[in-house]
Amino acid sequence: MALTPYRHLEHEFRRLHAFRTAASILRWDCAVSLPRGSAALRGEQLAALETHCHTILTSPRVSRLLERAEANAQGLDEWQLANLREMRREREHAFATPQNLVAQLARATVRAQVCWLEARQKKDFSVLAPALEEVVNLTRDKAALLGNALGLNPYDALLDELSPKLTSQEIDTLLMPIVRRLPGLIQEIIDCQAVRQPLELTEHIAPAKQKELAVQLMKAMGFPFDRGRLDEAEYPLTSGAPDDLRLTSHFVGGQLLSGVVSVLHGMGHAMYSLGLPEAWRDQPVGREAGVAVRESQSSLLAMMIGRSQAFLQYLQPHLERIAGVSGPEWRVDNLYRALTRVRRSPVRAEADEVSYIVHLVLRYELEREILAGEIRITDLPEAWNARIDARLGARPANDAEGCLQDVHWPLGLFGYFPSCAIGAVMAAQLYETLRSEYPELDREIAAGHFSGLSVWLRENIHGHGARLSMAELIENATDKPLTSAAWLRYVEGKYLGE
Amino acid sequence: MALTPYRHLEHEFRRLHAFRTAASILRWDCAVSLPRGSAALRGEQLAALETHCHTILTSPRVSRLLERAEANAQGLDEWQLANLREMRREREHAFATPQNLVAQLARATVRAQVCWLEARQKKDFSVLAPALEEVVNLTRDKAALLGNALGLNPYDALLDELSPKLTSQEIDTLLMPIVRRLPGLIQEIIDCQAVRQPLELTEHIAPAKQKELAVQLMKAMGFPFDRGRLDEAEYPLTSGAPDDLRLTSHFVGGQLLSGVVSVLHGMGHAMYSLGLPEAWRDQPVGREAGVAVRESQSSLLAMMIGRSQAFLQYLQPHLERIAGVSGPEWRVDNLYRALTRVRRSPVRAEADEVSYIVHLVLRYELEREILAGEIRITDLPEAWNARIDARLGARPANDAEGCLQDVHWPLGLFGYFPSCAIGAVMAAQLYETLRSEYPELDREIAAGHFSGLSVWLRENIHGHGARLSMAELIENATDKPLTSAAWLRYVEGKYLGE
Repeated sequence: MALTPYRHLEHEFRRLHAFRTAASILRWDCAVSLPRGSAALRGEQLAALETHCHTILTSPRVSRLLERAEANAQGLDEWQLANLREMRREREHAFATPQNLVAQLARATVRAQVCWLEARQKKDFSVLAPALEEVVNLTRDKAALLGNALGLNPYDALLDELSPKLTSQEIDTLLMPIVRRLPGLIQEIIDCQAVRQPLELTEHIAPAKQKELAVQLMKAMGFPFDRGRLDEAEYPLTSGAPDDLRLTSHFVGGQLLSGVVSVLHGMGHAMYSLGLPEAWRDQPVGREAGVAVRESQSSLLAMMIGRSQAFLQYLQPHLERIAGVSGPEWRVDNLYRALTRVRRSPVRAEADEVSYIVHLVLRYELEREILAGEIRITDLPEAWNARIDARLGARPANDAEGCLQDVHWPLGLFGYFPSCAIGAVMAAQLYETLRSEYPELDREIAAGHFSGLSVWLRENIHGHGARLSMAELIENATDKPLTSAAWLRYVEGKYLGE
Repeated sequence: MALTPYRHLEHEFRRLHAFRTAASILRWDCAVSLPRGSAALRGEQLAALETHCHTILTSPRVSRLLERAEANAQGLDEWQLANLREMRREREHAFATPQNLVAQLARATVRAQVCWLEARQKKDFSVLAPALEEVVNLTRDKAALLGNALGLNPYDALLDELSPKLTSQEIDTLLMPIVRRLPGLIQEIIDCQAVRQPLELTEHIAPAKQKELAVQLMKAMGFPFDRGRLDEAEYPLTSGAPDDLRLTSHFVGGQLLSGVVSVLHGMGHAMYSLGLPEAWRDQPVGREAGVAVRESQSSLLAMMIGRSQAFLQYLQPHLERIAGVSGPEWRVDNLYRALTRVRRSPVRAEADEVSYIVHLVLRYELEREILAGEIRITDLPEAWNARIDARLGARPANDAEGCLQDVHWPLGLFGYFPSCAIGAVMAAQLYETLRSEYPELDREIAAGHFSGLSVWLRENIHGHGARLSMAELIENATDKPLTSAAWLRYVEGKYLGE
């Protein structure tokens, strides 16, 4: 029997999935194993792979099949219709971006990633500047073309690619109450916490021990090491595919807790991947519903769960046993105080969950100005430092603590940071519902049982794949549209409640 | 100005190079990092990549460009003409293999590789048998189709793919004098060596120390760690590309020297890759002249240089310093006796350079019988054991020491072992010429200077890429056609000379 146009499309997108996940493993390799001098070849490889994905998506065959499948959609079920919609979306995005630009961006981002590593080591932004400038110029071109094709302003077009349907106007509206409240909130919390500072946790723990602890934790949370790995890299990331999950983390001797937090962050992504609808794994509808939703899952794990008394009750005996730490500073109450201490630090990776939003908003503002040409790349370090000083009263000691903190811009991920901020807001609303619907959560987590949490997230978020949009997912899970109210309630309750 | 057809072809093959080297990195990842449960996805990725390479090679566009470039070849120089010839060769090979078979082989070889790892650990061939059977069936189909298209018998068609123009008849002729002489030769050497057995070298050296020593050695030999890596894997291999060389080795506590030998073997491949003509790196003429020539380079390094007094004089102080070994068994004379001791061992990786040929010839015989259907896969363990017992008087204790030794058949590499045997013969003839043309060789090697060796090999072999055939390379370098005479002279001189 001849295949229907829809089935032919599924076949084309299955092939696309193979190429994309291959590219994802090569990107993982860039972070974990790529020799520095091999970046040019890797750029060519990724350019070839991504160009080929573009060729598939923009082929006359796929366009024709889409039209025919859409015209004969009456026999398709809800998932198939959603899959068709996502296929169309991918095709429209690809069609708006010239193939040449896809190849140039692949090369430029590999180059910038390698320069970023070197610049960070040398604490010198000028090592990165030319490569970043190239990425910015190409991204600006892409934003203009994509915006034109999609009827969006250029920045919103980039956002739409990462977090479908999210606009800067919606972001501004959602974040406004938080942004207004933050300066006062941070000061109030700092004053409130001044009376009972935690003991410092600066003991040096060998990275190998930290990794052992991380593996233990990941196993407890259901990470399948028979189809995934944890490796060390300069920055934490999650890549690969649900069938081959590649997490990285960065373990630094004197920073045990930040290693744990980064693994929890990765586990938020990993649980999402693992909970995606299995039958749709190689189809557009079977992937995550965008970066904002994805980051809501890592926020939920690393910020809300990871900084709860219950989680620390579970973690503490493992810290003692595996990392070999003991003493009053490693008791649960002190760990909790350490992880919830609000500080004016210039470094995002070390930030508490309150000032974290300041870091994200700062990057959101800066990246719009960079793309609009209002900040020159060479002026970025000074603009960054002035801005973080004004917002948080913290001044980076050098570029590594300043605008070289994140690899995302070198990777061309503009629109990522505001998506994270929305993810944090979404996480708070989800967490509020989760706690009220699932009162045994804390007791289970304290006992190291994460499957209840996992099932709830799968039912409410993960299992829907990209069938529902972010707005639909949050309404579906919490019976309310997304607002910043839950985030404010959560933070005020947790940090000013007593 | 419009590009000529030849220039268009270069562009197509540059793209092909990017896809192929990407696939090579994914194959490396299979050996070094792939989680077991991720094999199915990796099979899909490699099937997609290799199918796409096949699509490029068999496209009407490439066929048309080849015809037009060949018809207008008068303006092309010697390298360009050779490149055109190699392009044509690749196109003919691809054209003879249906795309479906390419995809099936990619999936089957990944599956068989994973089963092989498990079978080895369990020392149980039955874990591998079904997956190997699938690879054999597919390879048999491929051999028939390729043979038909190229006018070769099926086995010779597989050989031709790995080692261009090498036929089983030529192999038989070349190896005959050695095969006839081997049984007597081995016994004579064993008798001769009986009077002065080496002290055993069974001290346990931590794999990390062994790796440190290997890295030291690789640096001395010019390995560029800024565009290459050394990792541990279950089996040694060299993959990637000259711009991103990925070596693996297998370091076992009590077997320091076999780790060194495997690194030298990999360095033979690496030096060849690094010496390829730089301007032609992404073109067919810029790659190695086939597996036999490639293996001649690893034989030269791991067998001839690596088992010389001069090399051991260089190595010995490093062993003492890095591996921390000392005592009479670690003195140069004992190391030399240990590395040149001829033994009846069932394990190829531990074999001396004389009995090594027996191992290769045995596999050559068996693989022809397997492909001809004369040995059933399920009968392979017993056939293997009986054969090695008859040829070498050694019986494997289990399947891991028997027919599970090598990953090559699971990877579909039929024709590899006889190519290695011819490589060993070629190495001896090259080594004879090298020593006579370059009398300072031993002195330099003893002093840890490998650049003279490297330059000679580059001038005579590496720098020609695939411009010259194996036969032309050996005639060019040694002024003689390839025969087994030099190998016999070399072995008799070294092992029975005194």
